[in-house]
Amino acid sequence: MKAICKTKPGPGAEYVDIDIPKIKSDELLIKIHAASICGSDLPIYNGDALAARRMEPPFVFGHEMCGEVAEIGDKAKGFTKGDFVSVESHIFCGMCYQCRNDRRHVCSNLKILGIDTQGGFADYAAVPARCAWKHGDNSLKDIGSVMEPLGNAVYATLVEDIVGKSVFISGLGPQGLFAAQIAKACGAARVIAAETSEFRKELGRRMGADVIIDPTQGDTVKKVIAAGGEASGIDIVIEMSGNPAAINAALRCVKPAGKFIAFGLPKGDITIDYGNQIIFKAIDVKGITGREVFRSWYKMESLLKSKAIDPRPVITHTFKMKDFKKAFETAADPKKECGKILLIP
Amino acid sequence: MKAICKTKPGPGAEYVDIDIPKIKSDELLIKIHAASICGSDLPIYNGDALAARRMEPPFVFGHEMCGEVAEIGDKAKGFTKGDFVSVESHIFCGMCYQCRNDRRHVCSNLKILGIDTQGGFADYAAVPARCAWKHGDNSLKDIGSVMEPLGNAVYATLVEDIVGKSVFISGLGPQGLFAAQIAKACGAARVIAAETSEFRKELGRRMGADVIIDPTQGDTVKKVIAAGGEASGIDIVIEMSGNPAAINAALRCVKPAGKFIAFGLPKGDITIDYGNQIIFKAIDVKGITGREVFRSWYKMESLLKSKAIDPRPVITHTFKMKDFKKAFETAADPKKECGKILLIP
Amino acid sequence: MKAICKTKPGPGAEYVDIDIPKIKSDELLIKIHAASICGSDLPIYNGDALAARRMEPPFVFGHEMCGEVAEIGDKAKGFTKGDFVSVESHIFCGMCYQCRNDRRHVCSNLKILGIDTQGGFADYAAVPARCAWKHGDNSLKDIGSVMEPLGNAVYATLVEDIVGKSVFISGLGPQGLFAAQIAKACGAARVIAAETSEFRKELGRRMGADVIIDPTQGDTVKKVIAAGGEASGIDIVIEMSGNPAAINAALRCVKPAGKFIAFGLPKGDITIDYGNQIIFKAIDVKGITGREVFRSWYKMESLLKSKAIDPRPVITHTFKMKDFKKAFETAADPKKECGKILLIP
Amino acid sequence: MKAICKTKPGPGAEYVDIDIPKIKSDELLIKIHAASICGSDLPIYNGDALAARRMEPPFVFGHEMCGEVAEIGDKAKGFTKGDFVSVESHIFCGMCYQCRNDRRHVCSNLKILGIDTQGGFADYAAVPARCAWKHGDNSLKDIGSVMEPLGNAVYATLVEDIVGKSVFISGLGPQGLFAAQIAKACGAARVIAAETSEFRKELGRRMGADVIIDPTQGDTVKKVIAAGGEASGIDIVIEMSGNPAAINAALRCVKPAGKFIAFGLPKGDITIDYGNQIIFKAIDVKGITGREVFRSWYKMESLLKSKAIDPRPVITHTFKMKDFKKAFETAADPKKECGKILLIP
Repeated sequence: MKAICKTKPGPGAEYVDIDIPKIKSDELLIKIHAASICGSDLPIYNGDALAARRMEPPFVFGHEMCGEVAEIGDKAKGFTKGDFVSVESHIFCGMCYQCRNDRRHVCSNLKILGIDTQGGFADYAAVPARCAWKHGDNSLKDIGSVMEPLGNAVYATLVEDIVGKSVFISGLGPQGLFAAQIAKACGAARVIAAETSEFRKELGRRMGADVIIDPTQGDTVKKVIAAGGEASGIDIVIEMSGNPAAINAALRCVKPAGKFIAFGLPKGDITIDYGNQIIFKAIDVKGITGREVFRSWYKMESLLKSKAIDPRPVITHTFKMKDFKKAFETAADPKKECGKILLIP
Repeated sequence: MKAICKTKPGPGAEYVDIDIPKIKSDELLIKIHAASICGSDLPIYNGDALAARRMEPPFVFGHEMCGEVAEIGDKAKGFTKGDFVSVESHIFCGMCYQCRNDRRHVCSNLKILGIDTQGGFADYAAVPARCAWKHGDNSLKDIGSVMEPLGNAVYATLVEDIVGKSVFISGLGPQGLFAAQIAKACGAARVIAAETSEFRKELGRRMGADVIIDPTQGDTVKKVIAAGGEASGIDIVIEMSGNPAAINAALRCVKPAGKFIAFGLPKGDITIDYGNQIIFKAIDVKGITGREVFRSWYKMESLLKSKAIDPRPVITHTFKMKDFKKAFETAADPKKECGKILLIP
Repeated sequence: MKAICKTKPGPGAEYVDIDIPKIKSDELLIKIHAASICGSDLPIYNGDALAARRMEPPFVFGHEMCGEVAEIGDKAKGFTKGDFVSVESHIFCGMCYQCRNDRRHVCSNLKILGIDTQGGFADYAAVPARCAWKHGDNSLKDIGSVMEPLGNAVYATLVEDIVGKSVFISGLGPQGLFAAQIAKACGAARVIAAETSEFRKELGRRMGADVIIDPTQGDTVKKVIAAGGEASGIDIVIEMSGNPAAINAALRCVKPAGKFIAFGLPKGDITIDYGNQIIFKAIDVKGITGREVFRSWYKMESLLKSKAIDPRPVITHTFKMKDFKKAFETAADPKKECGKILLIP
Repeated sequence: MKAICKTKPGPGAEYVDIDIPKIKSDELLIKIHAASICGSDLPIYNGDALAARRMEPPFVFGHEMCGEVAEIGDKAKGFTKGDFVSVESHIFCGMCYQCRNDRRHVCSNLKILGIDTQGGFADYAAVPARCAWKHGDNSLKDIGSVMEPLGNAVYATLVEDIVGKSVFISGLGPQGLFAAQIAKACGAARVIAAETSEFRKELGRRMGADVIIDPTQGDTVKKVIAAGGEASGIDIVIEMSGNPAAINAALRCVKPAGKFIAFGLPKGDITIDYGNQIIFKAIDVKGITGREVFRSWYKMESLLKSKAIDPRPVITHTFKMKDFKKAFETAADPKKECGKILLIP
C-alpha cells in the first residue's frame, strides 16, 4: 500500500510503498477514507527530535482518520466488514485503574495512534477494535476523520456548564473554531475569541463567535473583559493557543470563581501569577487532553446528528495523500490561511 | 388603589378599591406594570378551601409581577425610584440554614407572595427588597412578570446536563413550552413532548419541540421512546402535567441511569412502580419547586439577553385587570387555548 | 463437583453432584472459597415463581462469591492460576451505550450471576474475566464474598456528600449495618437507624450507629428528626427496608433539598405523597442498584485496606454448603438474629 | 480600650489605648474572648509595604477572633447581647453577582477584617452582623477564634471527594495540620505530608498523618508517590506551603486526572511545567481562598460537634495581648516550634 512515512530522522516525509499492516487478534484493518492533519503532526513532519524519539522508520504518522472495516481480528467483537468507523486515537488498555474509573484518556498504559504506533496517513491502518467508533449510517462520512479533534473540542468546551455564561476562546485554530460553535450551540451567552489571522477571524465569525479581538492590537485583557459585559471578568476561558503570553492574558481575563480550560500546549515551562490569578481569584484550572472515551463521542455524535453543530466550514482544504507536501506547507502557513486539512488516499 | 381581591371565601374575586400597601423598612413599593396568571392562581380564584386557608379577605393574590419602584424602605439598599424590577415570589429569610447554604427556594421560613402575603394583581404591591430583581434596561419590560415562571422552567430544564441528550416534556402548559425552547437552545439533541390541546401543540412547535405526541392516542411510552431514537429510553424526562397516569408513563420512558424531573403537582398521593422504575433503573428523581435564587435569575437573564430564548410566543393573551373574569375564564378553558396570560392595571 | 441447586420448581434446593462448568474463552473458572447469602437468594430458595422464571434446573444460584482462579479462557487477559478474586455479579457487555458511559451496572445487556447464569453456591463457578476483581494479597480473603454486597452499600452511602451530615438508615439488615459504618468512617455527623430486631440493633451499635429507633414504638418520623438534631429534617435518608410504610416514613424524614437513597425493594407498586414529599421539599430521590463498576470496588478496597471500615462483625454465621438448609433457615429467621451468612464448600 | 496597633509604617506594633469602635447600624460590637495569629499577620507586623498600603494608623490588625456580642446595631437582626460568636473575616456585600451565586468568599466588593477594616487584636471589634457566626452553646468557646482558619482547611480538604483516596499535604503549618485530621476523619485512605520542622512533624502525627516526609532529604516526589502506594501518583494534592519548589514537586506528585488544591501563596510569579503537569496529566487545579460562606461553617461545626475533628492540639501557645511581642516572635520562629497561637485580651 501507499503511505506517508518518516523514512529517516530529520525534516520531511515520503510517499512510499509499504506492506499493509498485519492486524492482531483484537484489531481491525481500516481502509482509510480520509485522514486529517493535527497541529501535533507538524513537529513530526519537521523532524523535531523529541517527537521522533518514539518512532522507528519507516514510520506512518497521522492519528485523525476514518474508513471502512476491511478485516477483523478474531477477538474483535461487534464489527462487520464494510462498517464505516472513525477512530479514537488514544489506545487505552481497558484494565488499569484509570480505565476502570472512566478515565481512558489518561490510561496508565496509553499509546497514541500515529505516534506510539503506525498511524493513518496511508491506504490502510490497523487499530484496536475497542478504539473504533462505528457509524450507524453514512451521514457523517465526509467529516469522519474530523471527529477525533472535534471530540477534543466537545470535551474542552463542555467540561464546565456554559449555559448563559461568557466564554473567551484564546486562539482560533481548528479547535478554537469548533469550540466557538459548540459553545453557542449549547447556550453560551457570548463567545469572545482572540485571533490574529484574518482568514481565521472570518471563519470564527462563520462558526458563531460574537466578538473577535486581535491580541496584537491594544490591551487584550481589557478588550476581552469589556466584550464579556461584566467588569469582574469572563466566566469561562478556554486557552487554545499555547502561547505563554496568551496564557497569562487569558488567566487575567477569568472572573473570580471562574473556570480556565488549559488546552493549548506551550513549548516548555511557563511563568504565571499563581497567587493572584489562581488562588486569590479561587478559579479552577482544568487540564484537557484527548476526549472522554466514549462520553465525548456520544455527545458529539448527538450534536452532529441534531445539526446543533457542523464542523464542515472548518475543513478548508482537501489534498490527495500524494500531494502531502503541499498539504503540510498549507498547514504550516505562518499566515494561517487554513482550517482543518484532509488527506485522501 | 384598585386590586383583584378575594373578598370572601368561595369562588370568584372582585376588582375593588383598597389601600395602597404600607411598606416595611426592608420593602419596596412596586407600581405594577404587569402581573401574570399562574396555574396555582386558579384554585385560589375558584375558592379551593386549602388555598383559602392562609388568606384573610380582602386578599390580593397573584405572584408573578413586575413594575417600577415607587417607594423604598429605609433599610432597603440598592434601589432608586423608577427602577424597573421583576419579583422573586419566594420570600426567603436569608438567615436560616437553607438560605445560608444557597437553597433560598426552600427557606425554613418561606412565604409565598400572593399566597402568604398580599400579592400583585393590583396597582401596587409591597415586596421585600431582597426579592426584587432589578433590570439594567427596559429590554425585557414586556416580559417582566413572566420571568418568575420562566425562571422555574430554566431551573427544571437545566438542573441536569442536557447537551446532546433526548428530552421528553410531559405536558405543554406555559412551563412545558418554556422548557422545550430552553432545552433546544442549550444543546438538547431532541425534544419530544406530550400534549392534548391542538393550540398548545402548535405553540410547542413554535417553541422548538421536535416531536409532539398526543397521550390520548395509542401507547404513549412506546411512541415517546421511539421518537427519542434509542430503545433503552429517554435521557431526561421533565414531568410537568401532574397527572398521575402521565407521571407513571413518564417514569416508564426514562432510560436506565436517566433523570426524571418532578415538576407537575398531582392533587393527592400517587401510586408508582418504585422498585422497577426507580431502583432497578437506577434513575434520579429531582423534585423542583421555585427557582434557584438567584442563580436561575442570572442564567435566565443571560439567555434572554443573548436571544437564545424568547418567551414572547407563549404570552397569548393580555387583559386589563378590570377584565379579570374573562382572563380567568381563558386560563381555565378546558380546551387549553391559551398560553401565559398577562393582566395590566 | 457439589453444588446447591434448584433441581425443580417450588421451594427448597438440593446439594447434588453436577459437572464442573466449562468456561468460555473470555471466562475464568473460580474454585469457590466462600459464597454468601443475599436477601434476594431467599425468594429463589423459596421457589417464588418470578425468580424461577429465568432459570432451568439444575440451577446453581448464589451471586456473592470469591475464590481462586483455577482455569483461564484464552481471551481472558490479566490473570494467573491461583489469583484470589472476588466477583462482580453484574455481567456487563462492555460495548453498549451504558457500558461506554461508565454505567456498567445498568448495562443494556445485563445478566446477573446466579440468576441469569449459573451461580456460586458450588465448588466451582465460571465467570467472565472482566467481572473478576483480583486481590493483590490475602488480607481480605476472609471477607472476599462479602465485597459484592459491601460495594452496594459503599455506592449507596457515598453517592451523596455525607460529610458533617445527618444520615438516617431505614433498616439494619446487612446492607444497613454496612452503611452505618461507612457513613461514620466518612465523616457523617450523626447516624440514626430504624430497626426492630434486638440482635440487629446490637450489631448496629457495634457498627457505629449513634441512635437506633424501633419503628414499632411511637412516631418514627418525629423520633428520627429529633435524633438528627434539626427541626427541618434529616440531610440524607437511606431507605434499605423496602417496606412501603417505612418508605413513606423515610420520605417524611428528609429535610427540604435533602437526599433520599432508594435501595430497599418493595414487592409491588407503592403509594407516596409525591407532591409534598418530593416536589415541594425539592428533594433528590436516587435509585441504587448494584455498584458502580469498578469505581465502587476501588473505593471499597481502599477503605478496607486503610481499616476505615471492617465488615467482619456483620458476618454472624458460617455454614458448610452441605448444611445449606440450616443456613437458609437462619437467613429467613423472622426474629432476624443474623447478619451476613457465609457458605463454605 | 487596649489594642495591638500599627501606629506607624515599618516593623512592629504597640499595645495602646484607643477608642472602642463605634458600630454602624448593621454591625455588632464584639467583646473579644480570643484572637489568633494568622500567617498573613506576620508581614503586617513586620511592616511589609504592600500590606501596610491599605491601612491608616493607628490600625488594629488580626482577623481570627471570637467573643461576646456587647452591642447590636439597629438593622442587625438575629442577635442578643451576650451571644457568643466566631467571625467570618471576609466581609461580603450580599448584593453582587458573586454573593447572589453563593460565592461570597470572592464578593466583588470584598473587604477583609483586620486588613481593610479595623481588626480583632483588641478588647473590642466592630463586625457586620452578617459575618458573625452565632454559637448555640459554649462547647466550642475555647476554639472560637480558630474556626476562621479551620474553615479554610475544611473547604480546601473537602472541595474534592477524598473517600478512599491518597492525599498529600505539602506543608504542615496550622492549616496543613488541620487538613491532615480532616482528611482522615472523612475517609481518606492515606495521608502523606511533607514538613521540615520536627515540632510540626510530631504535631502532624498527632493529627493523624500516616507518613511524614522531610522535603530536604532525598527525592520528595519519589518518596511521596511511594508512600501513596500507587505508581501513577497521588489522588489529591493539597499545596499549603507556597514555596515555589514545593509547588512544582507537588504538581509532579499528582496522578493523571487527579486534583491539585492550590492554597499556599508564593511571593511572586512562579514557573511551572504547565504542559506536562497540568494538560497532559489532565488534572484540575483549584485555587482556594477563604471559606465557602456559610457552607464551610456548617460543615465545620458539624464535624466539631460530632467530635470527628478536634483542632485543640494545634493550639500550642496562648499569650496575653500585652505580651504580643513574644507571641509574634514565636509565630515567626524559623524553627517553626509552634502551631496556632492565641492572644487573650
